[in-house]
Amino acid sequence: MNKKKIFNDPVYGFISIPYGILFDLIEHPYFQRLRRIKQVGLTHYVYPGALHTRFHHALGAMHLMQQAISVLRSKKIDISKPEARAVCIAILLHDIGHGPFSHALEHTLVNAHHEDLSVLFMQELNEQFSGKLDLAIEIFEDRYHKGFLHQLVSGQLDMDRLDYLNRDSFFTGVHEGVIGYDRIIKMLSVKDGTLVVEQKGIYSIEKFLIARRLMYWQVYLHKTSLAAEQMLIRCLKRAKYLATQGVELDVPTALRTFLYTDYTSEDFQNNRRALLDNFALLDDHDIISAFKAWINHSDFILSFLSKSLIDRRLFRVHLNNEPFASDHLEMLRHKVVQTYPVSEADAEYLIFAGQETNSAYSTSKKEIQILFKDGHTEPMSNISEHGIPTGIITKHYLCYPKNIH
Amino acid sequence: MNKKKIFNDPVYGFISIPYGILFDLIEHPYFQRLRRIKQVGLTHYVYPGALHTRFHHALGAMHLMQQAISVLRSKKIDISKPEARAVCIAILLHDIGHGPFSHALEHTLVNAHHEDLSVLFMQELNEQFSGKLDLAIEIFEDRYHKGFLHQLVSGQLDMDRLDYLNRDSFFTGVHEGVIGYDRIIKMLSVKDGTLVVEQKGIYSIEKFLIARRLMYWQVYLHKTSLAAEQMLIRCLKRAKYLATQGVELDVPTALRTFLYTDYTSEDFQNNRRALLDNFALLDDHDIISAFKAWINHSDFILSFLSKSLIDRRLFRVHLNNEPFASDHLEMLRHKVVQTYPVSEADAEYLIFAGQETNSAYSTSKKEIQILFKDGHTEPMSNISEHGIPTGIITKHYLCYPKNIH
Amino acid sequence: MNKKKIFNDPVYGFISIPYGILFDLIEHPYFQRLRRIKQVGLTHYVYPGALHTRFHHALGAMHLMQQAISVLRSKKIDISKPEARAVCIAILLHDIGHGPFSHALEHTLVNAHHEDLSVLFMQELNEQFSGKLDLAIEIFEDRYHKGFLHQLVSGQLDMDRLDYLNRDSFFTGVHEGVIGYDRIIKMLSVKDGTLVVEQKGIYSIEKFLIARRLMYWQVYLHKTSLAAEQMLIRCLKRAKYLATQGVELDVPTALRTFLYTDYTSEDFQNNRRALLDNFALLDDHDIISAFKAWINHSDFILSFLSKSLIDRRLFRVHLNNEPFASDHLEMLRHKVVQTYPVSEADAEYLIFAGQETNSAYSTSKKEIQILFKDGHTEPMSNISEHGIPTGIITKHYLCYPKNIH
Amino acid sequence: MNKKKIFNDPVYGFISIPYGILFDLIEHPYFQRLRRIKQVGLTHYVYPGALHTRFHHALGAMHLMQQAISVLRSKKIDISKPEARAVCIAILLHDIGHGPFSHALEHTLVNAHHEDLSVLFMQELNEQFSGKLDLAIEIFEDRYHKGFLHQLVSGQLDMDRLDYLNRDSFFTGVHEGVIGYDRIIKMLSVKDGTLVVEQKGIYSIEKFLIARRLMYWQVYLHKTSLAAEQMLIRCLKRAKYLATQGVELDVPTALRTFLYTDYTSEDFQNNRRALLDNFALLDDHDIISAFKAWINHSDFILSFLSKSLIDRRLFRVHLNNEPFASDHLEMLRHKVVQTYPVSEADAEYLIFAGQETNSAYSTSKKEIQILFKDGHTEPMSNISEHGIPTGIITKHYLCYPKNIH
Repeated sequence: MNKKKIFNDPVYGFISIPYGILFDLIEHPYFQRLRRIKQVGLTHYVYPGALHTRFHHALGAMHLMQQAISVLRSKKIDISKPEARAVCIAILLHDIGHGPFSHALEHTLVNAHHEDLSVLFMQELNEQFSGKLDLAIEIFEDRYHKGFLHQLVSGQLDMDRLDYLNRDSFFTGVHEGVIGYDRIIKMLSVKDGTLVVEQKGIYSIEKFLIARRLMYWQVYLHKTSLAAEQMLIRCLKRAKYLATQGVELDVPTALRTFLYTDYTSEDFQNNRRALLDNFALLDDHDIISAFKAWINHSDFILSFLSKSLIDRRLFRVHLNNEPFASDHLEMLRHKVVQTYPVSEADAEYLIFAGQETNSAYSTSKKEIQILFKDGHTEPMSNISEHGIPTGIITKHYLCYPKNIH
Repeated sequence: MNKKKIFNDPVYGFISIPYGILFDLIEHPYFQRLRRIKQVGLTHYVYPGALHTRFHHALGAMHLMQQAISVLRSKKIDISKPEARAVCIAILLHDIGHGPFSHALEHTLVNAHHEDLSVLFMQELNEQFSGKLDLAIEIFEDRYHKGFLHQLVSGQLDMDRLDYLNRDSFFTGVHEGVIGYDRIIKMLSVKDGTLVVEQKGIYSIEKFLIARRLMYWQVYLHKTSLAAEQMLIRCLKRAKYLATQGVELDVPTALRTFLYTDYTSEDFQNNRRALLDNFALLDDHDIISAFKAWINHSDFILSFLSKSLIDRRLFRVHLNNEPFASDHLEMLRHKVVQTYPVSEADAEYLIFAGQETNSAYSTSKKEIQILFKDGHTEPMSNISEHGIPTGIITKHYLCYPKNIH
Repeated sequence: MNKKKIFNDPVYGFISIPYGILFDLIEHPYFQRLRRIKQVGLTHYVYPGALHTRFHHALGAMHLMQQAISVLRSKKIDISKPEARAVCIAILLHDIGHGPFSHALEHTLVNAHHEDLSVLFMQELNEQFSGKLDLAIEIFEDRYHKGFLHQLVSGQLDMDRLDYLNRDSFFTGVHEGVIGYDRIIKMLSVKDGTLVVEQKGIYSIEKFLIARRLMYWQVYLHKTSLAAEQMLIRCLKRAKYLATQGVELDVPTALRTFLYTDYTSEDFQNNRRALLDNFALLDDHDIISAFKAWINHSDFILSFLSKSLIDRRLFRVHLNNEPFASDHLEMLRHKVVQTYPVSEADAEYLIFAGQETNSAYSTSKKEIQILFKDGHTEPMSNISEHGIPTGIITKHYLCYPKNIH
Repeated sequence: MNKKKIFNDPVYGFISIPYGILFDLIEHPYFQRLRRIKQVGLTHYVYPGALHTRFHHALGAMHLMQQAISVLRSKKIDISKPEARAVCIAILLHDIGHGPFSHALEHTLVNAHHEDLSVLFMQELNEQFSGKLDLAIEIFEDRYHKGFLHQLVSGQLDMDRLDYLNRDSFFTGVHEGVIGYDRIIKMLSVKDGTLVVEQKGIYSIEKFLIARRLMYWQVYLHKTSLAAEQMLIRCLKRAKYLATQGVELDVPTALRTFLYTDYTSEDFQNNRRALLDNFALLDDHDIISAFKAWINHSDFILSFLSKSLIDRRLFRVHLNNEPFASDHLEMLRHKVVQTYPVSEADAEYLIFAGQETNSAYSTSKKEIQILFKDGHTEPMSNISEHGIPTGIITKHYLCYPKNIH
């Protein structure tokens, strides 16, 4: 069977698949499933082009990995064929545990972190592929002695981040996120087993970090998609609550499993294959399909949130550097109770405050290292004159329906 | 309420909304629904980026319409403000009657053409908006005396085609479809009430027609997405058949309505509001969600087709300039019956032949007119030396499961 | 005569000319001359695509000005037709006084600032155009009561900067300079007569300032083009010195005028038309043509520098945050004298140190003002959490021939 | 010495140099000279961005050659390292014999074809590089047994054409010339020693041929740049005539050599090094510099044409499918003689007719071969249903000053 395949990618032109096993993994239903999970959830409510999937992102990251391997090899860094294959597998599968609208789901439907699910998926695939993923899993879990391979998969300058900044920027149309990914990759090297960036790449790194921060504010934490996500979380929470109370809900089969039963990480481990098979059938379509069915449900909160989400009647959002005053919140909560048929206790479904933080670059985690011409390295934050966004920024938000004033 | 709004669009940069009523129409659930309907159905199985929606396309076409109006006005073509508003409304709503995977649906679930549904939606919206869509509908139905306005909405060089070629080319990454849309629009004019293109624009028109033809072969009629679409049609046909037989199917509410009842154009007219409201809740999500649920159905054909579609195990496709020989078909059909638990009669669900035609440019329909410097006009096909793709090309296809040889 | 004209521009697609007088100004030999002057001098020695001219930049800035006017008018800022025309003229002509390799020339051939020459050119054109440039000149010199019009021409966020960042980034291929110019322009407004940026545009402004700084380091002060420029300055200085000594040089007519005579600003004022006509015939071609002729001159320094520039044998450059130690300089100077037939006094032609500074954003000059939703404005530097590059950065350089060690 | 070098290229992102000898060749003054010769002559008078040089084009073609080699090798086509190096050298130097405004020069100043000069340059460089260019020259002259290597350098689908269509389209901003070069290269293969294109690439080839034809009409034979080129030819012809008459002309040294002496191909062969050294100092700058100096010459024709070219007062051009009627020409010639101080005999400098032809694809030359899945090949023109532009198209032009009516 012909395993040569080229994907058209509007971001990079073409993506080719370097090894047969990658082709087989891509063909597997577990991976095909990622075609049905959007990379940035409800962000398309703000940027209508942002419908790209985790499937496409995973291919893109694998494409960049191939380029990185080729650059490092040209600099005489030893990467064997099995290592190259393994690191490509690792990046291809790095997000395979993601469910639909990941964060929302993790809060409500599934009590397991997507990273843990990714590992479980890899282990299951490893079994199905007779151990051929051993090295990939070692690299993914940072147990392999060539640490830079793990860094390429997961670090402050990994192929994951390079691809998603590129891709999210491309599909949203937010040019502020454009990065010189090709230049960054050309500047990669390895020194004492650690991934480094050659001195000439400093400006590209700086641009990359700043682009990352700008994308946080303009896309990832955009207040409108933040409101949509919080509404989605509360809608699913309400559905879960009703399910717990034994209320009957019109809900697609794939979603029913996780709505009416509480699965933990242990359940997934003990009953891996069966639960992963179930989980693999759950995606964006079930959530949206359910919301549409719930519009006519007798529970006001479920119906109201579902209809608001489907018709894109999103809540008003306020952002603030400080937490919102509690009496102001109290006053609004009061209005909500007066306006809608909800109890004091349930008002939290319709009016809610919270906070989001972001840190484009962390000096506490393993830092990006710059390799100077004289051979010494320095962490990026050391290099004066460059305005690196190291601080953690916190924003407080407050959401409630638009006809509350 | 602030009705100024700018959409980020990776294709054009920004799209702004020129009139308040357009904003209100965009906000309407009937229009928001288009966010949930992909422009090119299952094409993303071949080009993973092609997830863009009819919502985005409609906005894009409206954006180009604004540019066209502005160009024509700069050439002293009289377009009043109400006319400009109406033609923008007409283009915004030109596709509003589309259902999910349009062609598939039209063959199976709904016995109505999407153009007719578009008109019904416009009439319903016109009622809800107190008659403010009168002129738009007149233009849409080509009853308005300034014929060029209709041509901008629907013709061989309309804003619909300009946008979808652009957009489909952008999101698929197939550069062969790139057109000089801005140049074409700059060259538009009106002569004796008819839309014309200034002589300097001939090359751009030629490029546009060729791009259109190339997009047909590379995207719209790509053999892999053709196979996927035919499988989808047969899967829904099977579901419909089972429904008719009274078999119980696990199916989302929005889809159930149309699976278990046969609605005709007349039903839609007699019961407009209610049926449109139902139809407006039906979208891509329900179809995909249903396929996933049907994987475990006891009917082999329904289950087999559903699983094949979900896991992207697409059938083998052969293309031919001539119809396939009937004995060859017979032989394959025989193998299908031997391999799968299906009757002779039902084999057509798993092996099928058919044909697709395309004509990038038609000389029988109203032709694109070129305006020469001396003031006379000529139809594009008259202008020798330019290789215009006028012929109708027919391709025969044959599809069956990959493990049949 | 048809004055409608559209320029193809790879950066913006199309540039159209809104007023007849702009067309006539563009046709004038003084403006056509800008076709022969590269925007970024010898930068193409580093970035081979950077051959774009001041002609193209001026058109581009005029294009952005039209967009800015249209955005401001849509926000009910009153800009009359004469004002719009005048501000377009002002931006079109803002750089008309630039000579070839501007900075080099200002140091050696012509004792006049390009800004002063721009004003002289405008005055001369105003006379030739019977006073039609009066208002444009008022705006250019910031004497017009609507100060925001001047700010659009010359300020920390003017159409000049927006275009050159865009354009230089495009033609060099340095993506770090890409800015969201369309978004910035959409966010412009006027408050109390001052140009402001709406709050939503903060991130775009931040990106713009950072892009500006990155372009400084990667392009405008790139060490290789810095070396080339310094070599060019010294080569012309040597030619001027020789000319002063009465040595005969093979030199194109247009350059001879300025090499053998010292013109001051006063000379230009007193003899405006004639001197400007001469100056308008001087461009990049004469300088390069002269260098080629000088390769065979008997003066070693002139010949050596000319040949090095033509063959792109550029000097070695060191950059430093601190001034270079004088004994190190002394040692190198000594080596130069030993290696080449030059006197101690003339060694400065072959080894030289100096400094360059850049400030992407200045808080001492009129700051960029942000307009908040509640109507108050704040200078950009006030807005915490945004890392604005306000500092002045100084780099010391040291250049000498590559075979000196 | 570090010979690793990366060029920024706005068209491809980055261009790297695979072999040390390529680096040395690029550094050679013969090659650096190409920085001073524009790829498309005076086309920037129509498309102001089209200032790119033969230097950049040669690098770009070399970049595509590397990609082609890598694709072919991945398909098990044997290309040894020396062969890869040689074919890269051949494409890098394929245009090294071009002079400024090539066609104009070939008609007037130098009686030698640029192809012949290219070979001479290669032979001279081969001598300077101790025979290291032997294989490259063999390939260039199609004497090497692996014919596909020559085809990559020079054929109907060579890296030269792919790059110049791309590059000219990019810098002019004429999107009609955009081609899917990466797809075409991915589809290249070799069958029986001949370069072929895999079946899947048919559409890209078709698009490429059509783009080529559109670029002919919109760029290469654009009537305005055609007028400019013809004026330039006549201006140089006049200068040559005056030189022959012993008239003294103010002219840069590099140009003087070729204006006052008639060199033939034999002269170049007999006196290779010296004449090539002289020729290598001649470039666009000398021509333009001379025109400026000639504006004040006493010969009316020389002065008139020079000033018209410098100020971009280009002649009127008419295009026609048939030759222009001789009495019409006669009438115009008469007017020219009445209007300007020129004799009947000299009128041909100011009014001239001629013809240009183009053939995007030739079936008489070695055709592009398509490789079908079953292993057989067919020439592109055989494949029906595809509208390949095979015809030769001829256009007749007529030019004269704009104030003649």
